[in-house]
Amino acid sequence: MNAEALTVPPLPGDATALIADMGARARAAAKRLALTPTADKAAALRAAAAAIRSRAADILAANEEDMAAGQKNGLSGAMLDRLRLDEARLGAIADAIDAVAGLPDPVGGEIDRVTRPNGLVLSRVRVPLGVIGIIYESRPNVTADAAALGLMSGNAVILRGGSEAVHSNRAIHAAFAVGLVEAGLSADAVQLVPTQDRAAVGAMLRAQGLIDIIVPRGGKGLVARVQDEARVPVLAHLDGINHLYIDGAADPEKAVALAVNAKMRRTGVCGATETILIDRAYSAPLAIIDALIAAGCEVRGDKGVAALSPHVDPASATDWDTEYLDSIVSVAMVGGIAGALAHIDTHSSRHTDAIVTEDAGVAERFLTGVDSAIVMHNASTQFADGGEFGLGAEIGIATGRLHARGPVALEGLTTYKWLVWGSGQTRP
Amino acid sequence: MNAEALTVPPLPGDATALIADMGARARAAAKRLALTPTADKAAALRAAAAAIRSRAADILAANEEDMAAGQKNGLSGAMLDRLRLDEARLGAIADAIDAVAGLPDPVGGEIDRVTRPNGLVLSRVRVPLGVIGIIYESRPNVTADAAALGLMSGNAVILRGGSEAVHSNRAIHAAFAVGLVEAGLSADAVQLVPTQDRAAVGAMLRAQGLIDIIVPRGGKGLVARVQDEARVPVLAHLDGINHLYIDGAADPEKAVALAVNAKMRRTGVCGATETILIDRAYSAPLAIIDALIAAGCEVRGDKGVAALSPHVDPASATDWDTEYLDSIVSVAMVGGIAGALAHIDTHSSRHTDAIVTEDAGVAERFLTGVDSAIVMHNASTQFADGGEFGLGAEIGIATGRLHARGPVALEGLTTYKWLVWGSGQTRP
Repeated sequence: MNAEALTVPPLPGDATALIADMGARARAAAKRLALTPTADKAAALRAAAAAIRSRAADILAANEEDMAAGQKNGLSGAMLDRLRLDEARLGAIADAIDAVAGLPDPVGGEIDRVTRPNGLVLSRVRVPLGVIGIIYESRPNVTADAAALGLMSGNAVILRGGSEAVHSNRAIHAAFAVGLVEAGLSADAVQLVPTQDRAAVGAMLRAQGLIDIIVPRGGKGLVARVQDEARVPVLAHLDGINHLYIDGAADPEKAVALAVNAKMRRTGVCGATETILIDRAYSAPLAIIDALIAAGCEVRGDKGVAALSPHVDPASATDWDTEYLDSIVSVAMVGGIAGALAHIDTHSSRHTDAIVTEDAGVAERFLTGVDSAIVMHNASTQFADGGEFGLGAEIGIATGRLHARGPVALEGLTTYKWLVWGSGQTRP
Repeated sequence: MNAEALTVPPLPGDATALIADMGARARAAAKRLALTPTADKAAALRAAAAAIRSRAADILAANEEDMAAGQKNGLSGAMLDRLRLDEARLGAIADAIDAVAGLPDPVGGEIDRVTRPNGLVLSRVRVPLGVIGIIYESRPNVTADAAALGLMSGNAVILRGGSEAVHSNRAIHAAFAVGLVEAGLSADAVQLVPTQDRAAVGAMLRAQGLIDIIVPRGGKGLVARVQDEARVPVLAHLDGINHLYIDGAADPEKAVALAVNAKMRRTGVCGATETILIDRAYSAPLAIIDALIAAGCEVRGDKGVAALSPHVDPASATDWDTEYLDSIVSVAMVGGIAGALAHIDTHSSRHTDAIVTEDAGVAERFLTGVDSAIVMHNASTQFADGGEFGLGAEIGIATGRLHARGPVALEGLTTYKWLVWGSGQTRP
């Protein structure tokens, strides 16, 4: 490998200059990557995965440093668990890179083609976005996932991870870069911001012309800062205040199974259901409440729900707008589909909402009427995931309305250009 | 018609409160519009076109007021010409609304559909963006065009035109609103900001959650302000510094015709060519220069070009980065396709660039290698236009990379949602 290509840029006192330098390198790398054949990108990813496996000891030692610092700094158990790497988790990270190498390359794909009456042939083809900035917290696997997705879609990536994972991120990034360079690509295709100075984040957010899109991956504080300060377009992921509506025509067996799965399969994921709405006309509401409680869930209900069971706590007004990410659910009785639509329109974060019903007409009304990124019929909201959607992997779930909505994977990291073929046509 | 529906909101001293009120009305209207059938939207547009025709005298009288004020305020001839309406221009505005009513409705269109191994059926369907804010200058036809495109794509629109056209815009908007209400839609679907206070523009740019996207239509000053201040996503149209590259293998007849058409057909449009690059291997460069000069174009050339003709002025360094929008062209000699790609990469504004060549391989290299919204082979850059692309009408040409690129028409004003049909699937 070429050691020079791995040189980390000097750390200037000025974060803006640092990001300008990294951005210029990234732009140059992006121009080459946009024209790099699929096989070469895949080979680079496989080399990166191999490098992560062969450097496992280094990476795990670096992770030990982060874990020790995290314990010293009083990180919560959940935070420490997110931060922790072991052989199995590191193997999964490498496997995920290999999996991305096997995905279809979106670049060059034709979206549509038309021949105009004057003989001009127009085609829209997918091209990379350019330079993607990822600002993330705690989970060191994002370093590898984001690098792999960015590279496979022909984009250069500038990564800025959180302080708590700084050693892990550097070790994973170094291994990834070794793979890139071994495969003949530039290490500038995937750069890690070499400072934890918060000013570097600000410089990324204002790097118009250098960074084409910012993807924040983290808690509400990070996303809010990014949305407030960014002059670069942002692909943001906000709350998942998701609803499961049990219609009067729901199948009771499906209703119980879906309610328990949607809420309790994993409570900490953004696709978890936070509020269950039950049609007053539904025949067996108590079975749902009992099943949730039996599964270990705290149920906070409105008056109608509280009247069903002594184990239901009363919900307060804030419960309907809360993303618990925990074994807690708010449950309200509503007046049929109209009541469900009204509640969801007021309280949904427009991530994922679902209906359980055997009435196709009511299902259609729900799918049409709910304005969320993902709307489901007789399926668990926990399926809101790029892998489950067949996209292979995701860089996040977009809750905004522009560019991409819902799970964002390789295609979401591309744009298009118009190609026009003529035979000398001039415009009258 | 319902006069109450046309009531202009009160003008509070606080621009933020004004925009908040308009935004809330627009959101409510957008929710209804998203579910409004195509036929009803088309009927409303036809009623709006009819109202503009029947109120022609009022609108032309209002335009007279703007023209008189413009002359008094020393607007340039070009500005006054843009501002001016007459029977024919007003007829064209009404016809354009009718034309939009006949376009295919993008809402509800399925982008793709897949069945997963677990039986879940996933489909992406187009839905409106929501509330679109249009901030524009001088041309009163934008009032009608933007309203029509927004409505047909199921969006509510908040319009903020320039002071110089305030009476014309109000008269056109009032007629449009009459049509909406006559057809049974809410006038809140298309609102015009009732004040020229610049603070209202600032309030629109910061109306996160109220306005989903801002489309600026105007000069560099307006676009720069919008990009700097906006917290709402922006679909911006920057410069059109477009190139026409005459390859060594170009057909001389096509080369002359395309050079003259691309530069001179209309010099003030964003698709006009501003720089012509000529391969040093091309056999007949002088014929191109002579034809441009004969067509009334000032030619500014590099040394190689200046050596061809005494009528060529020397180009300065700034010429290569200038959007003339006038009968001026900069011309440079380059070393084949590689030289052309290098020049375009440095100087193009990434709007529209074209190659003239009979060599299919070189054409392919150009189409792949130029990273612009539109890249053409043997066609005039003046075709860069939504109408010419078969999109029916355009709200602008996007030079950014996200969401939509190139001509933005009805489809560009939509997003999508994921619909998921299950039969009770829970996630393992």
